[in-house]
Amino acid sequence: MSGASVPVVDGATRIYGIIGDPIAQVKSPAVFTERFRTSGKNAVMIPLHARRENFEACMRGLKSLANVDGILVTIPYKNMVMKHVDVVLPAAKRIGAMNALRRETDGKWSGDIFDGKGFLGGLRSSGLDPKGLSIMLMGAGGAGSAIADALADAGAAAITIFDRNEHKCDALSRTIVQSHPNCRASAGRPRVEAIDLLINATPVGMAPGDGLPAELGLFGKNLFVADIVACPEITPLLARAKESGCGTMGGQAMVAGQSDAILRFFGLL
Amino acid sequence: MSGASVPVVDGATRIYGIIGDPIAQVKSPAVFTERFRTSGKNAVMIPLHARRENFEACMRGLKSLANVDGILVTIPYKNMVMKHVDVVLPAAKRIGAMNALRRETDGKWSGDIFDGKGFLGGLRSSGLDPKGLSIMLMGAGGAGSAIADALADAGAAAITIFDRNEHKCDALSRTIVQSHPNCRASAGRPRVEAIDLLINATPVGMAPGDGLPAELGLFGKNLFVADIVACPEITPLLARAKESGCGTMGGQAMVAGQSDAILRFFGLL
Repeated sequence: MSGASVPVVDGATRIYGIIGDPIAQVKSPAVFTERFRTSGKNAVMIPLHARRENFEACMRGLKSLANVDGILVTIPYKNMVMKHVDVVLPAAKRIGAMNALRRETDGKWSGDIFDGKGFLGGLRSSGLDPKGLSIMLMGAGGAGSAIADALADAGAAAITIFDRNEHKCDALSRTIVQSHPNCRASAGRPRVEAIDLLINATPVGMAPGDGLPAELGLFGKNLFVADIVACPEITPLLARAKESGCGTMGGQAMVAGQSDAILRFFGLL
Repeated sequence: MSGASVPVVDGATRIYGIIGDPIAQVKSPAVFTERFRTSGKNAVMIPLHARRENFEACMRGLKSLANVDGILVTIPYKNMVMKHVDVVLPAAKRIGAMNALRRETDGKWSGDIFDGKGFLGGLRSSGLDPKGLSIMLMGAGGAGSAIADALADAGAAAITIFDRNEHKCDALSRTIVQSHPNCRASAGRPRVEAIDLLINATPVGMAPGDGLPAELGLFGKNLFVADIVACPEITPLLARAKESGCGTMGGQAMVAGQSDAILRFFGLL
């Protein structure tokens, strides 16, 4: 029970939503609504459960509501949503997916992807700038692709990419080379030698009993290790890094970095 | 700032909305969200601002969202919304308007109008049952029509209807006679003689300096007087009734009666 005198919602409340299927598990409504309230903004973020066959009608209706200012997009709609925006921002265009849309002042909708920007924000908050670094990235799925793109965009010198799916791995390397010719991107086996930053962008570490995402040699203490797995907070990979005296960043920092980046995109930070 | 440990909204929150144009002035989001929270229901009611040209797309989108369970409808859409429901409940069918829609368990949408039920609930909470009564109703607009219908449905013996617009007055009398042959409905001048219940369903009394809605004789103390104007709480008509020792009901009781009736319709009371 809230004892607040300000109502949770009133007629003038601005609406943000997160659309997906399923939706009950998402954290964004609680996180963003709390941040709106803390900053004195009269807005809520609500879950929007769109089944596949209704996704198009839901998007058309939501965009038509004059008090809906932004929409987050989660599984399975990050690709399908692209045709619903008027302006595809650069990272979303390069990656072919988006996870946040906003209404511009002229009424048009634009969209961008914030997985990579969130990782980058978390990394910088943890004291590391990727500019000029040699990076080993494990995982070339949706999150890995967005992270590789953001790191290349931020001036990483080289990114070695590993994925059990060689096709994904090669495709991502080629994409990065094409979009960021100054970044040396290539497929390669997991290693820590001559690497400044080691990143796990696979789900390994999430399940009880998980070990490291790959066989890796001894960690030098100048290696920085980042893991996108947010729960548990200390994955086996991060535990190993901490034992070795390395700097680390966990999945929660990426989540926080992404919230900040999206709030800025919404003009609220 | 809320100190509550339960978030305002999370991924599993069920969504209710109120659609209209304009929307910022509506009270339902605050009132219903507070009632959901008080009763431990994980739900919010949000404002939905649909401009005329977008109303159809908005309704299609909202009905398609699997976690939207109910929609209130306000000006100017109470008539237009009727074609969006699968099942039109009896009062809405008789009146040709609706102000609340719900998703049924089979996925169909049904709709009803609660202005009249709200008035009736308020009246009963104030200790008066209209069954068998002779009633003078001033105002044959949207609210007056819904009230006359609900009173006839509840067994009122006779309803005399006055409106400055004679056409509206005659049309409403005919509608009531047709739908409720046991209720004697007719157009007539405002009077309190041989009347058990006097109702103001006009806006007169809302503006500063307003007097009574019509010239009326002395009020006997057995007369019961109801006013749909909610602000001020004591209209000139109600002040006169109280001075005369009459029982009274104000607009706030109708608002409360309507919220209760809608919460029952939503299966939440």
